[in-house]
Amino acid sequence: MMLAADNLTITRKMVAAALREMDPRPIRDLVSRMQKAGAEIIDINSGPLTREPEKKMGFLVETVQEVTDLPIMLDSSNPKALEAGLRMGRGKIVINGFSLEPEKLARILPLALKYQADIVGYLLYPNGQVPMNAEDLTDLAIQVHGAAIKAGLDEERLIIDPVIAPLMWENGLRHNRHVLVLLRNLPDLLGFPVRTIAGLSNLTAGPGPKEKKQVLAQAFLPMLAAVGLSHVLLNILDPAIVGIAQACRTLSGMDIFTWAEVVI
Amino acid sequence: MMLAADNLTITRKMVAAALREMDPRPIRDLVSRMQKAGAEIIDINSGPLTREPEKKMGFLVETVQEVTDLPIMLDSSNPKALEAGLRMGRGKIVINGFSLEPEKLARILPLALKYQADIVGYLLYPNGQVPMNAEDLTDLAIQVHGAAIKAGLDEERLIIDPVIAPLMWENGLRHNRHVLVLLRNLPDLLGFPVRTIAGLSNLTAGPGPKEKKQVLAQAFLPMLAAVGLSHVLLNILDPAIVGIAQACRTLSGMDIFTWAEVVI
Repeated sequence: MMLAADNLTITRKMVAAALREMDPRPIRDLVSRMQKAGAEIIDINSGPLTREPEKKMGFLVETVQEVTDLPIMLDSSNPKALEAGLRMGRGKIVINGFSLEPEKLARILPLALKYQADIVGYLLYPNGQVPMNAEDLTDLAIQVHGAAIKAGLDEERLIIDPVIAPLMWENGLRHNRHVLVLLRNLPDLLGFPVRTIAGLSNLTAGPGPKEKKQVLAQAFLPMLAAVGLSHVLLNILDPAIVGIAQACRTLSGMDIFTWAEVVI
Repeated sequence: MMLAADNLTITRKMVAAALREMDPRPIRDLVSRMQKAGAEIIDINSGPLTREPEKKMGFLVETVQEVTDLPIMLDSSNPKALEAGLRMGRGKIVINGFSLEPEKLARILPLALKYQADIVGYLLYPNGQVPMNAEDLTDLAIQVHGAAIKAGLDEERLIIDPVIAPLMWENGLRHNRHVLVLLRNLPDLLGFPVRTIAGLSNLTAGPGPKEKKQVLAQAFLPMLAAVGLSHVLLNILDPAIVGIAQACRTLSGMDIFTWAEVVI
């Protein structure tokens, strides 16, 4: 399971301010801490960037690349911002991402082919909503895979995100159970070992007691690992959840065990 | 997932001393704390009880029953001790357990039929060793189930223990991966929703750094839950692992989620 860090996000005031002022220093410092904490992919969640998308995403990608050679995930719904990031990228770039929404199929999915980049495909209805039941979730996985193939993409470039629902949603618990079952079945369903990603912070989004949130996330992550999740997007600056993630990797291995290998 | 508590064990000096002196007070106190901490089954690990097995097991069962009505799991390799416990039991008793070892098939398995008790079946070779590979583990599950049926037991009385290996064993990691796969496949393999149990403390048995042990156990438990484990035997007096177990139960549910229901 690869660890993608979700900390570089416009929803953090510090990041929003640095982006507004085009000040690379706080971002460099944050990315450096993310890398030290074990990040293997840096997610740049820039939001839609309605004003100056090219300039702003270019600045973010350039600043991250000043600090690290880690793969970058471009997390935006704005095709212009995504393309600017893809043009600036020197290393591996992942587009995050497309869904069956017509606008995204038309303007985001083709970028993966044009730039030969990996791309995240969200299992959402064409209207952007989370599926109502297990059958629709399965059907969306087939449709998202089919859309990627139809666009000419090598299927190995696809990373499926089944979208973890916040527990506080009316059907959040039920949906997340369906997500576990789907993740387990995906390789058989699509006929190849498709890569997958899930945003763990979604699980406990919204108000709620912090300690309970932490324990629920710590329990859900190994459940995802047990059904074969290949990438997790998480708060890499939370040592407790990172420790659990590292333990999941140890336990998913088949090698000889030594305590020295356990990085917690 | 039911929580069976492994704290009442002869390997704890306090328990050994109380049993030697036939002093019920420390045991009553311990069982009371186990129940308060969330135990749903009390495992009485008496060891083989080579001297006075009936008297000693009778004392242990009686003492536990003075404190609680919870189901009791009789954890001994001594058929005389097990039968004494079964005779004394006023509530639900689980025999823990038998394997394909000839002595256990001959003298322990029949007790389940005689006393209409549930019984744990260990997936071990007839020589008592842990299986070497995934094929043998699967084959042992079929054989243990077959032995129970052949003995006249209702298959619903069987609880399969695939035996978690200590990570420090040469093939411990590999075996535990096989255990996860087997647990997932067992209902299909045996054709009914067979109940299962695993002793979590086994995972980190032996020397090693305490903090790493805790995190590995906290990660492995949800993995077991995700593949359908129905009972876990654990240290109920460790609030961190119990919190994870409770979170697993919440996340395995399909009901409407509320923070108030999350007992952590």
